[in-house]
Amino acid sequence: MKKKETSKEPRNDLNPAGVIFDYCRAGRIGLPEAVFCQGKPKSILIDLLEQFQKRPVLFTRLDEQVFSCLPASLKRHYNYDPVSRTAFAVLCPPKDSSVRAAVVSAGSADAPAAREAARTLHFLGYSYNLYEDTGVAGLWRLAGRLEEINAHQAVIVVAGLDAALASVLGGLTARPIVAVPTSVGYGLARAGESALASMLVSCAPGVSVMNIDNGYGAACAAVRILNLLLPPAGD
Amino acid sequence: MKKKETSKEPRNDLNPAGVIFDYCRAGRIGLPEAVFCQGKPKSILIDLLEQFQKRPVLFTRLDEQVFSCLPASLKRHYNYDPVSRTAFAVLCPPKDSSVRAAVVSAGSADAPAAREAARTLHFLGYSYNLYEDTGVAGLWRLAGRLEEINAHQAVIVVAGLDAALASVLGGLTARPIVAVPTSVGYGLARAGESALASMLVSCAPGVSVMNIDNGYGAACAAVRILNLLLPPAGD
Amino acid sequence: MKKKETSKEPRNDLNPAGVIFDYCRAGRIGLPEAVFCQGKPKSILIDLLEQFQKRPVLFTRLDEQVFSCLPASLKRHYNYDPVSRTAFAVLCPPKDSSVRAAVVSAGSADAPAAREAARTLHFLGYSYNLYEDTGVAGLWRLAGRLEEINAHQAVIVVAGLDAALASVLGGLTARPIVAVPTSVGYGLARAGESALASMLVSCAPGVSVMNIDNGYGAACAAVRILNLLLPPAGD
Amino acid sequence: MKKKETSKEPRNDLNPAGVIFDYCRAGRIGLPEAVFCQGKPKSILIDLLEQFQKRPVLFTRLDEQVFSCLPASLKRHYNYDPVSRTAFAVLCPPKDSSVRAAVVSAGSADAPAAREAARTLHFLGYSYNLYEDTGVAGLWRLAGRLEEINAHQAVIVVAGLDAALASVLGGLTARPIVAVPTSVGYGLARAGESALASMLVSCAPGVSVMNIDNGYGAACAAVRILNLLLPPAGD
Amino acid sequence: MKKKETSKEPRNDLNPAGVIFDYCRAGRIGLPEAVFCQGKPKSILIDLLEQFQKRPVLFTRLDEQVFSCLPASLKRHYNYDPVSRTAFAVLCPPKDSSVRAAVVSAGSADAPAAREAARTLHFLGYSYNLYEDTGVAGLWRLAGRLEEINAHQAVIVVAGLDAALASVLGGLTARPIVAVPTSVGYGLARAGESALASMLVSCAPGVSVMNIDNGYGAACAAVRILNLLLPPAGD
Amino acid sequence: MKKKETSKEPRNDLNPAGVIFDYCRAGRIGLPEAVFCQGKPKSILIDLLEQFQKRPVLFTRLDEQVFSCLPASLKRHYNYDPVSRTAFAVLCPPKDSSVRAAVVSAGSADAPAAREAARTLHFLGYSYNLYEDTGVAGLWRLAGRLEEINAHQAVIVVAGLDAALASVLGGLTARPIVAVPTSVGYGLARAGESALASMLVSCAPGVSVMNIDNGYGAACAAVRILNLLLPPAGD
Amino acid sequence: MKKKETSKEPRNDLNPAGVIFDYCRAGRIGLPEAVFCQGKPKSILIDLLEQFQKRPVLFTRLDEQVFSCLPASLKRHYNYDPVSRTAFAVLCPPKDSSVRAAVVSAGSADAPAAREAARTLHFLGYSYNLYEDTGVAGLWRLAGRLEEINAHQAVIVVAGLDAALASVLGGLTARPIVAVPTSVGYGLARAGESALASMLVSCAPGVSVMNIDNGYGAACAAVRILNLLLPPAGD
Amino acid sequence: MKKKETSKEPRNDLNPAGVIFDYCRAGRIGLPEAVFCQGKPKSILIDLLEQFQKRPVLFTRLDEQVFSCLPASLKRHYNYDPVSRTAFAVLCPPKDSSVRAAVVSAGSADAPAAREAARTLHFLGYSYNLYEDTGVAGLWRLAGRLEEINAHQAVIVVAGLDAALASVLGGLTARPIVAVPTSVGYGLARAGESALASMLVSCAPGVSVMNIDNGYGAACAAVRILNLLLPPAGD
Repeated sequence: MKKKETSKEPRNDLNPAGVIFDYCRAGRIGLPEAVFCQGKPKSILIDLLEQFQKRPVLFTRLDEQVFSCLPASLKRHYNYDPVSRTAFAVLCPPKDSSVRAAVVSAGSADAPAAREAARTLHFLGYSYNLYEDTGVAGLWRLAGRLEEINAHQAVIVVAGLDAALASVLGGLTARPIVAVPTSVGYGLARAGESALASMLVSCAPGVSVMNIDNGYGAACAAVRILNLLLPPAGD
Repeated sequence: MKKKETSKEPRNDLNPAGVIFDYCRAGRIGLPEAVFCQGKPKSILIDLLEQFQKRPVLFTRLDEQVFSCLPASLKRHYNYDPVSRTAFAVLCPPKDSSVRAAVVSAGSADAPAAREAARTLHFLGYSYNLYEDTGVAGLWRLAGRLEEINAHQAVIVVAGLDAALASVLGGLTARPIVAVPTSVGYGLARAGESALASMLVSCAPGVSVMNIDNGYGAACAAVRILNLLLPPAGD
Repeated sequence: MKKKETSKEPRNDLNPAGVIFDYCRAGRIGLPEAVFCQGKPKSILIDLLEQFQKRPVLFTRLDEQVFSCLPASLKRHYNYDPVSRTAFAVLCPPKDSSVRAAVVSAGSADAPAAREAARTLHFLGYSYNLYEDTGVAGLWRLAGRLEEINAHQAVIVVAGLDAALASVLGGLTARPIVAVPTSVGYGLARAGESALASMLVSCAPGVSVMNIDNGYGAACAAVRILNLLLPPAGD
Repeated sequence: MKKKETSKEPRNDLNPAGVIFDYCRAGRIGLPEAVFCQGKPKSILIDLLEQFQKRPVLFTRLDEQVFSCLPASLKRHYNYDPVSRTAFAVLCPPKDSSVRAAVVSAGSADAPAAREAARTLHFLGYSYNLYEDTGVAGLWRLAGRLEEINAHQAVIVVAGLDAALASVLGGLTARPIVAVPTSVGYGLARAGESALASMLVSCAPGVSVMNIDNGYGAACAAVRILNLLLPPAGD
Repeated sequence: MKKKETSKEPRNDLNPAGVIFDYCRAGRIGLPEAVFCQGKPKSILIDLLEQFQKRPVLFTRLDEQVFSCLPASLKRHYNYDPVSRTAFAVLCPPKDSSVRAAVVSAGSADAPAAREAARTLHFLGYSYNLYEDTGVAGLWRLAGRLEEINAHQAVIVVAGLDAALASVLGGLTARPIVAVPTSVGYGLARAGESALASMLVSCAPGVSVMNIDNGYGAACAAVRILNLLLPPAGD
Repeated sequence: MKKKETSKEPRNDLNPAGVIFDYCRAGRIGLPEAVFCQGKPKSILIDLLEQFQKRPVLFTRLDEQVFSCLPASLKRHYNYDPVSRTAFAVLCPPKDSSVRAAVVSAGSADAPAAREAARTLHFLGYSYNLYEDTGVAGLWRLAGRLEEINAHQAVIVVAGLDAALASVLGGLTARPIVAVPTSVGYGLARAGESALASMLVSCAPGVSVMNIDNGYGAACAAVRILNLLLPPAGD
Repeated sequence: MKKKETSKEPRNDLNPAGVIFDYCRAGRIGLPEAVFCQGKPKSILIDLLEQFQKRPVLFTRLDEQVFSCLPASLKRHYNYDPVSRTAFAVLCPPKDSSVRAAVVSAGSADAPAAREAARTLHFLGYSYNLYEDTGVAGLWRLAGRLEEINAHQAVIVVAGLDAALASVLGGLTARPIVAVPTSVGYGLARAGESALASMLVSCAPGVSVMNIDNGYGAACAAVRILNLLLPPAGD
Repeated sequence: MKKKETSKEPRNDLNPAGVIFDYCRAGRIGLPEAVFCQGKPKSILIDLLEQFQKRPVLFTRLDEQVFSCLPASLKRHYNYDPVSRTAFAVLCPPKDSSVRAAVVSAGSADAPAAREAARTLHFLGYSYNLYEDTGVAGLWRLAGRLEEINAHQAVIVVAGLDAALASVLGGLTARPIVAVPTSVGYGLARAGESALASMLVSCAPGVSVMNIDNGYGAACAAVRILNLLLPPAGD
């Protein structure tokens, strides 16, 4: 830990070495540290992508524009998805596939968060199924999938606007529900704040909620749950 | 119209005569002026209640504490309901009962707004049916009433918290829907702001919305619709 | 309904087949499903535009930039309007033209929402008249059109800033009023939030309100009303 | 100016002498310092009321409950109005009555702010006329008074809810307009925030705005204007 | 289901029969319906308390003032706790005590929510341990309890103000974490909104969040998780 | 007034003729209608700029990018200022120069609003003086100009951030003060909302306030005041 | 540390022993733990007041109503001030009086926060001087005290409304400034949020800010500064 | 001071001379005036950069895009850092290096504010050490640096999201703490508002707070503290 910078030598450009990676996180909490790319200068991103091209590290919020400008020699090591804006070079070891999560989203505009959750689960080695376009304006879509959803031990619900899907599904399943509001819509959708509030005051009991668009966090919350059903040993 | 007050005679107490009633409103828009009691000084309320004990005028937001302190000689003329906080002495003429509105509410805590809507419809002479405790956490309650609700020409939906009922019902009925968010709940319910936002961004198309707890306004909106199906003549 | 995605095959790009269209919506609520384009990836939009070039489907919030980049072979099937950002290839069957809606807007900056409402009505087969630049800062503009407006069975009011037009017109007409706040202005206009609040607390009774800029929804609300005056039969 | 308190003698109760009155304010800006009573401890209020029972000082936001508990020997010196919550013992010298302000309010619930403005003008020696219940839901009430209002050199408009009166009147008069939003209403009225926003984004040009319920400030703003038409010399 | 109210007989007082209890909820989602008392009229509460004095039903947000005014004959059947404002007459059957939840709170002012969670778990038959006053301003308090906390399968974190406890604990435990923000504090605490936001943007991954002060919901979320470790059969 | 659009001929592009100019406004309120350019489609702007190149009409919020793309043949008729984003081709007749307004701004970042006010006054024919960079962090700058400022009959104060200048100047001058908050700053400056609030709750009495950045409106408010000192006859 | 509560014995009343006092805080950070009374149940408060009647512990936000209901035997040990709502039984040892803080407030309504700061300094053993009613609407009051204020090593500025005092004083003194916004005022004062924002965006550099009304915290921040000038050894 | 602009000569372009520099600020408050570049027109920036290329003036919020477009002859005089967006040509005289500040940040995304603080300290001549990536999700990173941090006389804490670092560090150090919230994150991070609130309601006593991202201000606040430990003489 030699990270301090003295005033003798004022810094004028970014020092990638400034990042102190929390390597021991997986041992502590069962979840490895991930790299949140949004807002990080390109030089630091390149440094980190180079550093982790042989190790299981997940990059989130990595915009397609940023990724596409990377050197081809670096890009080819990474499995990148522009919708979820996630990338990884190596997967974590797969877990027992009978323990798995359902990701249920209301509309196709919720895809970025829903797929961030799905990709995170996949990266961490967990099985999942993704059910998209299940919004309550056409309830038959949810009804037809309910039994299948109930066969998962954790359910991630992804919805924007009125987020009514969280309440309706919360009243129909006994599974742990992690709800992700999304920033779709305009006007009073308030970039997801209204969906967030709807989920927090859901009339269905025991629905817990993540930050807006936080598919990554929802997957982590699901993994904390699924790990209860797996043998210890961790990551 | 002799309402001005000159600076010669500074006013120190409330002049009830200060109110200029919009008597011609019913002729203009089909809805008589009502008296919004909240915040009005007691002296003005008594004056107005005396003035209208033989005429069809609706008093809204008249708190039980205020009403109970009125002189008994005045109270006995009025039909008062403490839940909806409405009062009237005389009803408007009844309209053709085949034209009617359904008032559908999510929970018993929504009663103040739901019954304000119901009582306003009744006062104005319109038929209605009230369906309470129809929240989507137990969808079977709505399913069992849907056909009956569809037999009304206008539907008022009253719900707080996530207000998911508005979206679910909006996806199941073709009738005009007027949605009333309510101020029930705590925390992120934000005194009804979250229910309001949910209704405004409902995933069901064509749901129009009133102010929080505004059952009176919802009834007026329904009457504007129902009047299309009645012979003119008004009031 | 075979929409689930298993964890065996992680998805890295958008699957247009992920969209489950609610085809039966028109039968259920008298309004066909529309495609909300904002935020949808281009690949899905192209897929949907191809799928519906022979069927009556409305595309809303389709930005001119996006539309202009589409293949010419696709664009020529569509009637596109850059102001309202709407497109359709085929119209719904026309309804009886004696049943119609007035769209009244305050200023020329309200055109996107006003014309979205007008175009939606036209697409769905309903007659309408559009009255623009009717703001109350020059009351004579509204006064001269009032009688004509009253000849419609539903009135859509579109206004931003102080949205005073909704209150003034609400005090002058007996027709059902659906009010659409717009996001014009700056500072305290707060992207339409102030207009929305003004409409919700309008001093005129029975004014119901839509989300900011939601001309599409207002047309749907008007159609729910107008359908009461038409023979059943649906779409 | 000997107001400091040393740490030698810790203070445990309120020292009324802690108030440093800005006696020279009238000479500087043409407006004497007033006493804002809300939140001031009772001991300080009594001290100030005693101090000023022979001098022209205005007390604002003095609640009836507080005033009624004062010693009778003190109360009898004061002209107190419970609606505007203002009190004074001595008036400022009257000004030329051809220079005067109109106070125009939308509804009787706006009386507290409207009368605070009127009483402040009266206290400061200015002529005024008060026009109440002039809301735009019944435009005829404003139309019938317009000419009379235009005969004043400054117009104070007091309105809550949608505050549409400010815009309508602003489009009809050439006089300086000072608009006061009021905290009447519920839900989206947001204790006057919506009326405030409406006034600030008024579609009528040149409407300036005061804080919510600030009738006192509006009168001061009007006095700054009226003083332009009076001979100097001040208070 | 005979709950509708016709316009023939206008309702002036509350009909307790208006409540349609969702009896089948436990079978559907593993959680029985509870009675949220806040805002419910006293007559309805008495009716419900009478109805359930021999059955396992939880009453939440039942204020001490309300409870103390109930008839003694009714009160004696109920186990009431004024801090958590919860009451029940009969407990649900106890579950296997090796499956249990930890309730960890930051300060003694968080007791209402923390104990609502604890009492709900107890009522539903689940084992728990409650760790109060564990705030991070004195980290040694958390450090000394960490091992013990990790011996539970679900952790409920209750904290107000900066809610830093959720982040710190989230970085130290691998267990599922359900975070409950509380409304303690003043000013920028904003009645719990700031604690809520802190928890939602926690730098520790996989922390899911409930509504402000919603200890009941947190217990339900924990029960959804704990049920994964219990044999089916449900309630 | 032939502005309606029938449903026979659906409109797909903007009809510039859709604008109904309020020509009689100057006669009514002493202020001619201006053209607010922000958000108006380019085709309408060009049409209006062509229409008014020989008449006194002010264009506000006309971005430099938009203006620079106009045809040179059109641009050369207009006096355009990129800082205030205003344009006009012909000035209104000049008024008596002894009647004039002071425009006082806190910092050079406030120039857009300050100069919009100054240019509007100039366009309307009123004299003014502009005092920039007078912020209270260096009080000597204001002190040295106070006497000169007091020689104007109306004072427009333009300030962002804490807007302390409005309070300090309000405590030093007897002139009517119209305060314009600006959107300078970041973070808690909240795009001018904090400056607006500061001005509305100013500890100096009688400061009236305009919308954020609304230099145009402030000039109009000042003109309403200055006109009291000019012979009638108007514009 | 034996604070856990097992589910064997459900808790129905408050256990005062639930509080784990952070006794070692003074040694760690130079500030002893204080007791924040607001929201704490009376039984816990009595327990804590009894526990600390012979030790230097500060009680903050202890309302007069609560304190007056305590047993006289307990009250007589405490030095209680109703304005600042603070109490203590024993003082901390006095520090060198040449090191001291100035507490400067804008108006007498700011007394609760200003005196909470002053009383906290006094309790902790630090010298201070309190300058009240120094608001900038009458700048002469500040000017006359500036030299004296500059003789302190830390300055606490307490102001509500526009909080302009913080900016003006920040531009006149080189001392560390800790600013405390207060919740005085109404409307846009927003219970102190506007004063807080003004202070945070102050045009004077290096003004740091505390939570609304947090005089206690300001004193602690000042003590952290003053301690730099005192010999170590601590509390 | 000849800065006024008369109406004779309307201004159409920016007059760089419009800036009145507060040269005497350093003498008054120990901090020289800095140039806040954001929002300033390029012409003014160039003028100021030319003016100060031989004098110690700090330019803040100078975007890399803007700087890179400057003439090379100008750029080469300046030491520019794109991360902190600061520039200066000449340093202030160095102070005694035993008096120094620690800048501690939570993550690498906080670099812009952290380095703005560090660069400001360096420019003003103060010693500092910068500790990055010290977030509490991995507490060991802070623990290992605590002793070193405590060796500074002032601590600047820079953190976004939940800002828990401020509370944890505030509970571990006795030094004056100036906390800077940052705008990192998305959703409920609300561009730094949540971090700001967390810091203001920190459970650690005496943490004072700056505006979001205001590293410059934090350095100024630290300098006001450090100057207490230096001989007078000033800048």
